[in-house]
Amino acid sequence: MKALVIGFGHVGQKIAEIVIDKKSYPGLVSLDLSITGIFTKTRGALTDPSGINIPDAIRQIREEGHFSRNNPQYTDHPLQQAIQNLDYDLLLELSTLSIANKGEPAISYIKEALKRGKHVVTANKGPVAFAYHDLMMLARKHCVQFLFESTVMDGTPVFNLTGYTLKGATITGISGILNSTTNYILSRMEEGGSFQEALACAQKEGFAEANPEHDIEGWDSAAKIASLANVLMHAKITPHDVDREGISHITPDMVKQSIKSKHCIKLMCRAWRENNQAYAKVKPEEIPTNDPFSTAKGSGACLRIETDLMSPILIMQDSPTVKDTAYGVLNDILTIQQNMC
Amino acid sequence: MKALVIGFGHVGQKIAEIVIDKKSYPGLVSLDLSITGIFTKTRGALTDPSGINIPDAIRQIREEGHFSRNNPQYTDHPLQQAIQNLDYDLLLELSTLSIANKGEPAISYIKEALKRGKHVVTANKGPVAFAYHDLMMLARKHCVQFLFESTVMDGTPVFNLTGYTLKGATITGISGILNSTTNYILSRMEEGGSFQEALACAQKEGFAEANPEHDIEGWDSAAKIASLANVLMHAKITPHDVDREGISHITPDMVKQSIKSKHCIKLMCRAWRENNQAYAKVKPEEIPTNDPFSTAKGSGACLRIETDLMSPILIMQDSPTVKDTAYGVLNDILTIQQNMC
Repeated sequence: MKALVIGFGHVGQKIAEIVIDKKSYPGLVSLDLSITGIFTKTRGALTDPSGINIPDAIRQIREEGHFSRNNPQYTDHPLQQAIQNLDYDLLLELSTLSIANKGEPAISYIKEALKRGKHVVTANKGPVAFAYHDLMMLARKHCVQFLFESTVMDGTPVFNLTGYTLKGATITGISGILNSTTNYILSRMEEGGSFQEALACAQKEGFAEANPEHDIEGWDSAAKIASLANVLMHAKITPHDVDREGISHITPDMVKQSIKSKHCIKLMCRAWRENNQAYAKVKPEEIPTNDPFSTAKGSGACLRIETDLMSPILIMQDSPTVKDTAYGVLNDILTIQQNMC
Repeated sequence: MKALVIGFGHVGQKIAEIVIDKKSYPGLVSLDLSITGIFTKTRGALTDPSGINIPDAIRQIREEGHFSRNNPQYTDHPLQQAIQNLDYDLLLELSTLSIANKGEPAISYIKEALKRGKHVVTANKGPVAFAYHDLMMLARKHCVQFLFESTVMDGTPVFNLTGYTLKGATITGISGILNSTTNYILSRMEEGGSFQEALACAQKEGFAEANPEHDIEGWDSAAKIASLANVLMHAKITPHDVDREGISHITPDMVKQSIKSKHCIKLMCRAWRENNQAYAKVKPEEIPTNDPFSTAKGSGACLRIETDLMSPILIMQDSPTVKDTAYGVLNDILTIQQNMC
């Protein structure tokens, strides 16, 4: 399968590394992926119908900060035209969420690819949070797949869990801890220290962006719970419809009080139905220490799923890294590959 | 689909109840299941090619303790012959695990059905723990499916989780709390009281059998970890190969000491590979209270899965009931139905 890749940050580079080292992973032996284009916003673009030289591309980005103009695969082809004209089977959309632009320009790129009958895998939660139903309709119309497993909880199966393994069950409620930056900050505050100190630690250790507002004000969580509600509970909401409260007002005293009463503070995401309408919220809550949610420390995440046919189930991930996100994308690529056979 | 059912205890009755009430579950609207035979070990048998009268069958079992000889659907047809001669599409094998008989007679019944080209769903862990590879080979040879999702963690997806949602990943280790009776007993002991008192409670509340040796000596756990190792890690082991220790020697003092050091005692099941060989054990272990395993209280269960492509994931169930097991079986039936279309 020929892939056109948008975005070549940590996730894109890790996917490329796994692909060139696939012999180290027995389960990837049948993975058939050739990267024929890589387009970045500010670091240049490469194309080659016979496959990009991946080690060179990674080295240039890491050493020079951008693709080298001397690279024979370098191109000035604009991305929009590349999506419309180049020869590829699969668009890998790996850019980051833009709340301000309501998921654009990723949504438009994905639409262009789907309209050309190309499969799409995205690691960007914007398109799922803002335009899930439109994109799925377009994918169905053109008989291609639009997949996004890694957008919530990285490689941990969430959308596939419900799509493939809970046959016949109707999802009645979802709750979870879905943002690693805020969970890391709250975990640090349990060990003592202010919100600002914990945030500085998170930034130092690479968990938080230089501008962390997006995470700490709950926008990332809101995009994730909106995505889950849209996909799993047939909701039609965007992150703006989520009743949202961040964690910047949490004081060391609140954390201390919470620990004293055998609780801990977690930024909880919840979605539910009431009178045939879906609702979602993101709020800090006090969680008892004997609840599994309380054991999601640091960058861990977890999700509880309630259905009409069984007791709630909970899926959890331990300290994910960028490899987990890369795996989520590869899992989707394998799904497309299997369905093509 | 016409189903021949072996066993009509709590799980069989609950499946039958859900099937006749399927309009209450929106996701079951397409379930196409007609029960054309029910065979029990000591409570009689019913057959009818146009479908058993389920409400009557359930009422007779509950009120009279067995099927009524006056029931026009009553039969003296021996089970073995029924499996070989009756008209059905699917064998539902719902009898209970026999360690002493190494999974028999269930394994033989399943073999007979597979050889006739009938699909098989079992809720009995014996066949998976003792004969998984033989049964799968037979199913493949006859182009039918052999499914068993409910044998470990009831309706919580475990085999489907790994089969459908972890594409490309190789499972390198499994650990979990898989037996509800022992977990209930250990949880009760944390609240005070001896092993014997906790066991009596478990029996009173219906978690433990009158003869609980099977659970407390770790045989049920051993059968489950052997099944998981066989299916998910290509092991070829039986419960007899599992290094097994039960919980009957756990004293209130051991539990108290464990709590004092911020731990709790759990009967852990583990499977791993070493020098290309699979190993499994079942042992009581001290688990730190900040580990998700420690939050599986009462009849809850959970499983941690390690792979080569991402951080460990953990799936957990809250207080399952017999409905969860019934759902696991229905999930398998829906899988077969979908693959037939």
